[in-house]
Amino acid sequence: MTNTQVTHVQIDNYGPWTVTPEPRREVDLQTLQSRLYADLSQLIGNRGGYVFFSRFDNMIAVTNGLDEDDHALVQESVGNRYPVTMSLSVATGTTPAEALGTATEALQEAGSAQDKSRREILRGRTIDEEFRTAEDLQIAHFDVNDATGKYTDQLNEFDTFIRIEQGYAELMRYMRRAYDSLSFFVGGDNVIAVCSEMDAAEYQDAVDHVREAVDVELKVGVGRGRVAQDAGMAAKHALEECRATGEDVHVDWATGETDPSA
Amino acid sequence: MTNTQVTHVQIDNYGPWTVTPEPRREVDLQTLQSRLYADLSQLIGNRGGYVFFSRFDNMIAVTNGLDEDDHALVQESVGNRYPVTMSLSVATGTTPAEALGTATEALQEAGSAQDKSRREILRGRTIDEEFRTAEDLQIAHFDVNDATGKYTDQLNEFDTFIRIEQGYAELMRYMRRAYDSLSFFVGGDNVIAVCSEMDAAEYQDAVDHVREAVDVELKVGVGRGRVAQDAGMAAKHALEECRATGEDVHVDWATGETDPSA
Amino acid sequence: MTNTQVTHVQIDNYGPWTVTPEPRREVDLQTLQSRLYADLSQLIGNRGGYVFFSRFDNMIAVTNGLDEDDHALVQESVGNRYPVTMSLSVATGTTPAEALGTATEALQEAGSAQDKSRREILRGRTIDEEFRTAEDLQIAHFDVNDATGKYTDQLNEFDTFIRIEQGYAELMRYMRRAYDSLSFFVGGDNVIAVCSEMDAAEYQDAVDHVREAVDVELKVGVGRGRVAQDAGMAAKHALEECRATGEDVHVDWATGETDPSA
Amino acid sequence: MTNTQVTHVQIDNYGPWTVTPEPRREVDLQTLQSRLYADLSQLIGNRGGYVFFSRFDNMIAVTNGLDEDDHALVQESVGNRYPVTMSLSVATGTTPAEALGTATEALQEAGSAQDKSRREILRGRTIDEEFRTAEDLQIAHFDVNDATGKYTDQLNEFDTFIRIEQGYAELMRYMRRAYDSLSFFVGGDNVIAVCSEMDAAEYQDAVDHVREAVDVELKVGVGRGRVAQDAGMAAKHALEECRATGEDVHVDWATGETDPSA
Repeated sequence: MTNTQVTHVQIDNYGPWTVTPEPRREVDLQTLQSRLYADLSQLIGNRGGYVFFSRFDNMIAVTNGLDEDDHALVQESVGNRYPVTMSLSVATGTTPAEALGTATEALQEAGSAQDKSRREILRGRTIDEEFRTAEDLQIAHFDVNDATGKYTDQLNEFDTFIRIEQGYAELMRYMRRAYDSLSFFVGGDNVIAVCSEMDAAEYQDAVDHVREAVDVELKVGVGRGRVAQDAGMAAKHALEECRATGEDVHVDWATGETDPSA
Repeated sequence: MTNTQVTHVQIDNYGPWTVTPEPRREVDLQTLQSRLYADLSQLIGNRGGYVFFSRFDNMIAVTNGLDEDDHALVQESVGNRYPVTMSLSVATGTTPAEALGTATEALQEAGSAQDKSRREILRGRTIDEEFRTAEDLQIAHFDVNDATGKYTDQLNEFDTFIRIEQGYAELMRYMRRAYDSLSFFVGGDNVIAVCSEMDAAEYQDAVDHVREAVDVELKVGVGRGRVAQDAGMAAKHALEECRATGEDVHVDWATGETDPSA
Repeated sequence: MTNTQVTHVQIDNYGPWTVTPEPRREVDLQTLQSRLYADLSQLIGNRGGYVFFSRFDNMIAVTNGLDEDDHALVQESVGNRYPVTMSLSVATGTTPAEALGTATEALQEAGSAQDKSRREILRGRTIDEEFRTAEDLQIAHFDVNDATGKYTDQLNEFDTFIRIEQGYAELMRYMRRAYDSLSFFVGGDNVIAVCSEMDAAEYQDAVDHVREAVDVELKVGVGRGRVAQDAGMAAKHALEECRATGEDVHVDWATGETDPSA
Repeated sequence: MTNTQVTHVQIDNYGPWTVTPEPRREVDLQTLQSRLYADLSQLIGNRGGYVFFSRFDNMIAVTNGLDEDDHALVQESVGNRYPVTMSLSVATGTTPAEALGTATEALQEAGSAQDKSRREILRGRTIDEEFRTAEDLQIAHFDVNDATGKYTDQLNEFDTFIRIEQGYAELMRYMRRAYDSLSFFVGGDNVIAVCSEMDAAEYQDAVDHVREAVDVELKVGVGRGRVAQDAGMAAKHALEECRATGEDVHVDWATGETDPSA
C-alpha cells in the first residue's frame, strides 16, 4: 500500500509582489521562478525526493525521506537567497491526492496565498522512520510514442506542443479522477505521475483512455521505492524496457511483490 | 500589421543524452532544464526579447531586436556552459504561427532533433533594422479572475492546477486556430500570448470562448511595441487596468493608432 | 582534539578544456566556475559542510557529516549538469593541513589534473559515525576592524581590495605555517579558517602577527562543532561578541570545555 | 592611448544584511555572492564587457560598450531577483586606476556602503559612441608557468594555493603602483589585468619583478580592443603563443599599430 508524503510549497504573497510598486520585467520573473524551482529540485533531490514545478508559485513535492528539520532547512536556504519567502505544508496519505489535500488545507488555514502578513509557514507531519517501507511510493514515467518522428520532426513546434499538452491534460485529469494520482509534465514528451496503489491493468486503462480521448499514444514504466528517487529511477528503467519490447506498460515490482493484477 | 520575429530553440539530441549511458537522475534533468531556460530568459531578455519554456527541450522565443550575431552569442554562451548544445532557427511572419512554422521547418531540414551528428545549427533571417516598427509586436497578458479566491485558497493545489491547465489548454488551441497566435503558460494563473493583428473584439471573443468551453473566467491586457519587452510591459499595465475597472479586455494602442475595431 | 575531514575537489582536465578547440569566452568561464562553486556550496552545505572556492578548478571542503555515498551524489549531480566532471578525494587528520595533504596525495596518485583520461576519481575515507564528536571541528571567522570606515568609504575600490588581500595573504601563510590551519577569503572583509586545536592566546598571536606584519587590524570569533555549519555559526556569533565588546578574540567553547589556555 | 570605462558595483548595506536579524548560513551567503557575480558576468558580458568578483560585495567591471541605460538594466535585473540591491558608479580615465578612483569617489559621495537608506545609486558618465576607438582597452592575461607540473600535481592544494596567491598579491600591487593597472585572479593559475598604455618591455618588467620578489614564474599575453571581450580574447590567443614559443611576453597590437617600445 502506498504511503505518499507530499509537500505543498507556496511562495508567500507572490502575486502582489510581482506588481509592486509596479509590474516587474517578465524575463526577470521567469528567471526567478525557474531558478527557485531548480534550487528546490536540488535541495529536495539531495534527500531522495522529487519536486514538480506545477504553477511555479505553488509547487508539489514528494518528500518521503525528508523530516521537519529537512523542510526547515529548505525554507531557510530559500529565505536567505531570494527576494521572496516560501511556506511549506507536508502531509501523508494512502493516495497522493489525499496527502496533497491535507497539506493544502493546513496551508489555507494558516492564511491566504496573498495574505500580506502570512510568511514562512511550516506545517505538517512527516512519516516516522519506523513506519517507512519500500512500497511507500509508486511512480510512473509516461512518454509519447515516437514523439520525435510523429511530431517534433514534422509539425511546427507550437503544434507539437499542443499535441503534447492535450495528451498531458487528458492524462492528468483521468489519473486524478480515476486513481487519485498526480501527474506532472516534466519536459519533452514526458509525464511523471505519483501514484496510488495501481496495478498493470490500471496503467493500461489510463493509456487506453488517453488514446481514445485525444488520440495521443503513450507508454509507461512504473517503479516502487522508499523514496521518489528510487521509485522514479526504477520507472525510467521500466520505460526503457517498453521502448525495447514495444509494450504499452512495464511495471517493476522490484521489492519482490507479485503484480497484484496477476 | 504585426511582424513577429520568432526563434525556435532546440537542444541537440537531448532525448538520447538523458538516457546515455543510462537514465540520469530526474532532479538533475529538471535543474538543468530550468536553469538553461532561465539563462535564455536573461540572454534574450537583455535585448528586449521574450522566451517561453514550452517543452524545455524545445523553446519558443520572440526575438525582434536580436540579429544573427546576437543569436550566435546566445548559442555560444550555452555551448560553453552546459553539457548539451542548442540549435536555433529564426524567421519572421505576419503572424506568429507563420513565423514559427518557417523557423521550425528550416530546423527540421537541417536534421532530426535526435540526429547524432546535427549540432548547433544557426539558421534564418532577422528583420533588417530599417524595416522594424513600433507595431511589429502585439502581446496579450491573460490571467484568471480571482484565481486566489476561487481556487488557490479553496481547492487542493492539484485541483487548482487542473482548472488553470484546462483554461490554458483551451485558450492555446483557440488562439492558434482562430488567430494564428501563440499562447504560453508563465506561472501562477498567467498566460502570455504572442499575437497576430487582433482587435479588442477578437480578444473578447477569445475570453468568451474559454468561459463557454471550460468555465474558466479570464481577463486580458494587450500592448504593442518594437520589442517584446515593450509590448509585454504595456500588456501588464493594461491588465492592471482591467483589475481596476472590472473589464474583460483592455488594449493599449500606445503608438497612437486608433483601435482598428472602433 | 580536532578531527577535520577535508575533501579536495578538482575539475578534471580543466585547463585544456578551457582552450579546446580554442580559448573560450572569459565571461562564460567565470559564470561556469562561480555557479559550480555555488552548487557545491548548496550540495555540501545541505549536509552541514562548508566549501571554499580557492582556485575554482580546485576547491577545498570541510565535509564532516558527509560519507562516501554523499560524496558520490555530489559528483554525480555535477557530472549530469556541467560540461566538465570532478574528482573528489577525502581524508581526515588531527590538523586540517594534514587531512588536506593526505587527500591531495591520493588524488595525485590517481593521475594528473590535466590527464586526458583521468575522470571522476572518488577516493578516501570518511569518519565512521561512532568516532565523531562535537569537538571535531574548530572554525574561526576573522574580519577587518572597521573596514567600511577605514577603507571602503575612503579609498578607491582596488586600493581597498589590495589592503584586504594583504591582510588575507599574511594571515593565510601564518595560520598554515604556525598552526597547520587553512584560511579562506570569503568576500567583503571576511576570512574563515578551518583550525587545528588552537586556544585563545594562539588566535591573539595570529591577530598580532598580521597587525605587525602588514598593519591590518583583525578581530576573530571562534566556534566548535560536529559539523562545519555548527562550528561556523558559533564563530559568527562569537565575532558579533567581539564587535560588541571591542575584543580582538572571542572563543565559544560551546561544548562546555574550558579554554585550554586558561 | 587607453580609455578605460570602469564601473564600481557595490551591494547596498550588505554587511548589516548578512547579520540581520542574526547571522545567516555561510553556505547561503557564498551561494548568493557567487550567483550574483555569475549573473553580472553574463549581463555585462552580453555587451562585450568583463566583470571581476574582487570582494563580491564590491566588484569591478570594464564596461566599454555599455551606456547608462545598459547599466540601469543590469541594476534592475538584479533588484528584481535578489534579496539585496546594487549601486553602480561608472567613470572613464586614461588609466584604469584613475577611472576606478573617479567611479568609487562618486559612489562614496552618494553615501556609505552601510548607509541604511542609500539604495540603487546609478551615477556616472559612459563614453560617447563617437569617441570610442579600437585602442580604448588593453588587457593582459597572465598565467603561472607549468603550474600543474610544479604545484598542482606536487604540493597539497593549500600550499599550491599559497604559491599562486603570493604571485597574484605581488603582481596586483606592482601593476597598480608602477602602471596604474588593475589585476584580478580569475581562477586556476590565471590573472587578468586591465592595463594602462603599456608596451612589451613594461610587461617583461612586471614578470621579472614577480619572479625576483616571490619566485613565481609568469608569462603573459596582451591584446587590444574596443571592448573587453575583444582585447581579452586577443590576450588569450597571445598567451597561447607564449605557451608555444616559450616567450615570457607576447603582445598583439591587432589594430596594426606598431609596438610603441620598438
